[in-house]
Amino acid sequence: MEGEDEVILLDFWASRYGMKVRIALAEKGIPYEYKEQDLMNKSQLLLDMNPVHKKIPVLIHNGRPVCESGIIVRYIDDVWNDKAPLFPSDPYAKARAMFWADFIDKKLNQLGKNLYTTNGEEHESSRKEFLGGLKLLEGELGDKPYFGVESFSFLDLSLIPFNSWFLVYEMYGKLNLEHECPKLTAWAKRCVENKESVSNTLPDKSKILAFSQDRRKKLGLE
Amino acid sequence: MEGEDEVILLDFWASRYGMKVRIALAEKGIPYEYKEQDLMNKSQLLLDMNPVHKKIPVLIHNGRPVCESGIIVRYIDDVWNDKAPLFPSDPYAKARAMFWADFIDKKLNQLGKNLYTTNGEEHESSRKEFLGGLKLLEGELGDKPYFGVESFSFLDLSLIPFNSWFLVYEMYGKLNLEHECPKLTAWAKRCVENKESVSNTLPDKSKILAFSQDRRKKLGLE
Repeated sequence: MEGEDEVILLDFWASRYGMKVRIALAEKGIPYEYKEQDLMNKSQLLLDMNPVHKKIPVLIHNGRPVCESGIIVRYIDDVWNDKAPLFPSDPYAKARAMFWADFIDKKLNQLGKNLYTTNGEEHESSRKEFLGGLKLLEGELGDKPYFGVESFSFLDLSLIPFNSWFLVYEMYGKLNLEHECPKLTAWAKRCVENKESVSNTLPDKSKILAFSQDRRKKLGLE
Repeated sequence: MEGEDEVILLDFWASRYGMKVRIALAEKGIPYEYKEQDLMNKSQLLLDMNPVHKKIPVLIHNGRPVCESGIIVRYIDDVWNDKAPLFPSDPYAKARAMFWADFIDKKLNQLGKNLYTTNGEEHESSRKEFLGGLKLLEGELGDKPYFGVESFSFLDLSLIPFNSWFLVYEMYGKLNLEHECPKLTAWAKRCVENKESVSNTLPDKSKILAFSQDRRKKLGLE
């Protein structure tokens, strides 16, 4: 159905939520118009399309908005269902993938953010919890090449955006991820090397580092 | 596949999240063993089955746990897919139902809780936001009999557990819901009158009121 479709993505380049959606669109080979958003000065289009949360990413498909990254990925999978299924077909594997993706969205994202935006006690407890969360995911991956039972799928694309932030986490969280989570590190490398949807989407780590340093300056942390 | 299945639900009677799952199980006609949990003194079974969040509800299907109410409902719909579909078949309607259910879980639940567990400024701002949220949902319902496009479905079962809490919200939030949200009030009545899955699941409003009064006493609010 691509021929007739108008697909627009409201997004912000450094957003881990936005990257999930961009990878899903790339996996499906869906052409779309990317509209970078200024989160400090939100556009009328963003406010109109997501009046409840006023957040990116928003996918606008033939004029109708879909919000919240996990819901957008599912929508993409439902509408463009002729190729590259994004969810495991087994209901239990699907439920597990959704559980961990939810854990990443609800917990891990915030903990990762705390590594470069907080100091003192909050920083230290976030550091421990963040590493603990990554180790849980390392256990979930086990010796599989991807989280998806059959192939790269929902949980892979939900976690891989962290890869572009690894340098930030390592620097401000004083972590050595290759040492702490060797399987996850190998998985991330595998995703970047084997999946064009990933390598073409993830921003350069040095750009993300510069972005986080700018944030720290604004917060008075350096 | 019911014949061979062992289905256990770890739950707490007053939980709005748990009620969602119980309604879904009732809609599908799935027999299960209900195991009430003491949330002040969590059982080893609960800790073993949901080590990450340590929360109810947990559905244990043939020994394997599924956690998080929205994910459990989807799992139920995927496994017992021969009757009573719980999601709209249209991808856009499904995405909207998921968006609002997520809004209820992430925002409305906490705001509703604040109505009977807080005082002062937090109470007043929660009251306004809670009512604003209900009015958004009233707008989403419009003049349809149920939120589901075709019938009672995911968004209906995600919101209807609030019905047993309405008395609490009205009393401590100083709200007149029939006046403020007439369409939602009529919808709730319709669900209770027409759906046995709902009327057999929702606890009595007076029991919920007594439960909330007990909570307030423990919090030193009365």
